[in-house]
Amino acid sequence: MRQGHQTWVFPSKPVIVASAAIGGPFEAKGPLAEDFDTLHGDLMLGQDSWEKAEKVLLEEACDKAIAKAGLRKEDVDFLLAGDLMNQIISASFSARTLAIPYLGLFGACSTAMESLALSALIVDSQSADYVLAGTCSHNGAAEKQYRYPTEYGSQKPPTAQWTVTGAGAALVGSKGSGLRVTSATIGRIVDMGLADPFNMGAAMAPAALATIESHFRDLQLPHDHYDLVVTGDLGRVGHSILCELLPKHNLFIPLERYVDCGMLIYGDNPNVWSGGSGCGCVASVTFGHLLRRMREGEWKRILVTATGALLSPISYQQGESIPCIAHAVSIEAE
Amino acid sequence: MRQGHQTWVFPSKPVIVASAAIGGPFEAKGPLAEDFDTLHGDLMLGQDSWEKAEKVLLEEACDKAIAKAGLRKEDVDFLLAGDLMNQIISASFSARTLAIPYLGLFGACSTAMESLALSALIVDSQSADYVLAGTCSHNGAAEKQYRYPTEYGSQKPPTAQWTVTGAGAALVGSKGSGLRVTSATIGRIVDMGLADPFNMGAAMAPAALATIESHFRDLQLPHDHYDLVVTGDLGRVGHSILCELLPKHNLFIPLERYVDCGMLIYGDNPNVWSGGSGCGCVASVTFGHLLRRMREGEWKRILVTATGALLSPISYQQGESIPCIAHAVSIEAE
Repeated sequence: MRQGHQTWVFPSKPVIVASAAIGGPFEAKGPLAEDFDTLHGDLMLGQDSWEKAEKVLLEEACDKAIAKAGLRKEDVDFLLAGDLMNQIISASFSARTLAIPYLGLFGACSTAMESLALSALIVDSQSADYVLAGTCSHNGAAEKQYRYPTEYGSQKPPTAQWTVTGAGAALVGSKGSGLRVTSATIGRIVDMGLADPFNMGAAMAPAALATIESHFRDLQLPHDHYDLVVTGDLGRVGHSILCELLPKHNLFIPLERYVDCGMLIYGDNPNVWSGGSGCGCVASVTFGHLLRRMREGEWKRILVTATGALLSPISYQQGESIPCIAHAVSIEAE
Repeated sequence: MRQGHQTWVFPSKPVIVASAAIGGPFEAKGPLAEDFDTLHGDLMLGQDSWEKAEKVLLEEACDKAIAKAGLRKEDVDFLLAGDLMNQIISASFSARTLAIPYLGLFGACSTAMESLALSALIVDSQSADYVLAGTCSHNGAAEKQYRYPTEYGSQKPPTAQWTVTGAGAALVGSKGSGLRVTSATIGRIVDMGLADPFNMGAAMAPAALATIESHFRDLQLPHDHYDLVVTGDLGRVGHSILCELLPKHNLFIPLERYVDCGMLIYGDNPNVWSGGSGCGCVASVTFGHLLRRMREGEWKRILVTATGALLSPISYQQGESIPCIAHAVSIEAE
């Protein structure tokens, strides 16, 4: 690897054999509803806690992806998964149910592309035939853990985001036809000193910029190479910041081809402030909406840049700013 | 990969170019003190919180490993790290300081070998020249997060373990000479229904068994293949359970060659109950003590099986049992 490069190119172009997206009642009212495999009318999913409901979202996304591929879970060599919960219990308890050899990951919302990048690397290096990448989040569980009890009804500023109740999973394989993972850029931490957990989009936009910049530089790509450049999840605030930053850094990506998962999932709904967020947002939008539209021929090449705000309530309480990261994965139609 | 196999063999045998171990004041009193690179007399490490002290442990282990390799941090392509804190803030904030492209991992104490296994895979697949694997834990930070405030002075049962204040890091490279990573077995979740967070050793021993069993089966190894089979961290309780389980499962590993990091680090000290634990235990014992003794010729081939209890305080409070996992890595002298 050339020094200073942080992009993996996958010569075998691992195949996304199947993918799935699961959502909750609020996601069912959004403009992407038809791109979910399952939409739950009950935020509890019949469980007795939000955390258990979140786990079920991920289990269902994994089960669905395996079933759509016509495989059994015994055919899957490894599961790479993560979520926003302390000690990523949603992923680990799902891994218990699935009984697939498991590697737990944490990169906040960036985990969606961290898991896809590593899954593609494992398949590309012939270290597995099938690897399942999955992430999830749950609005109730995330609000409870990160912020105030929802019962307080505390007001939020317009820069805040709404954690998606959802999960997405992609089954990456060494053979078959379909969409292919062609490269991945692993980000480094970017921290501009922002410390406001109600304005994650502004904190994360520079991390997205850094990774997109590295991706185009490492691969020497023309700036209009992708039919769609996607971030997840900067929301409206972060999206508009990145739209300003890109040309300033001489990245002339056609801005009409740049979208953010946090804006797509709820459309113009003003009740989500700046937009959606959470591991389940970029995962369900990518593995549901985006891949479906790619399969239908709408786009041939996309770059998905998942951003993560790597704070914890403790780091915030101790006065730390928010370290942010972004990982990007390119997906191409054959 | 053959179906049902969960072991990666690394044909290029990635080199552990250098490794480092950092410890706290209590570790300095233990029998492995001389195998640490740095031992701190102050549990706070001059910081104003335990969490910040934990981050410094990991930063120091990473810096030391890079320096011992005669490299600069710009030479390291990727950092793979994790810890026990909510949202693995120790690893992520260390990644901010180090400014190396970063993949965050969570597998509780098993993260130490999860990070080494993935680092070796990345190097073996020629996706990097140098990858740094590191994990850490801090007694004060872990007690505060997982259990009662230490000021309560609450009694613990003899099955409890003492979280190590320490960190370990290994720099894995594609060239050079030294100890080599030859294979890794990725575990699946084993949950025997135990729910007592003060008896992790008993919960985790079956996970260690499952992974060791898979390792020997996948590679068709004779049971006396390794000069040392290591677990971390089962403590005395888990060690004795595994000693019983191994022959019952027809694994005739010579028991005098089986040691546990949680027993090694504090020796016979009765004040640590069953022994040491935490991401920093297996990491500092392996990357300090074990590798040093291997370099001195004491052992030629070892298998390190790091176990993780993937519970959170929330999952425990909700009545869940403890999902456990173990990942094993074989390290050989040239």
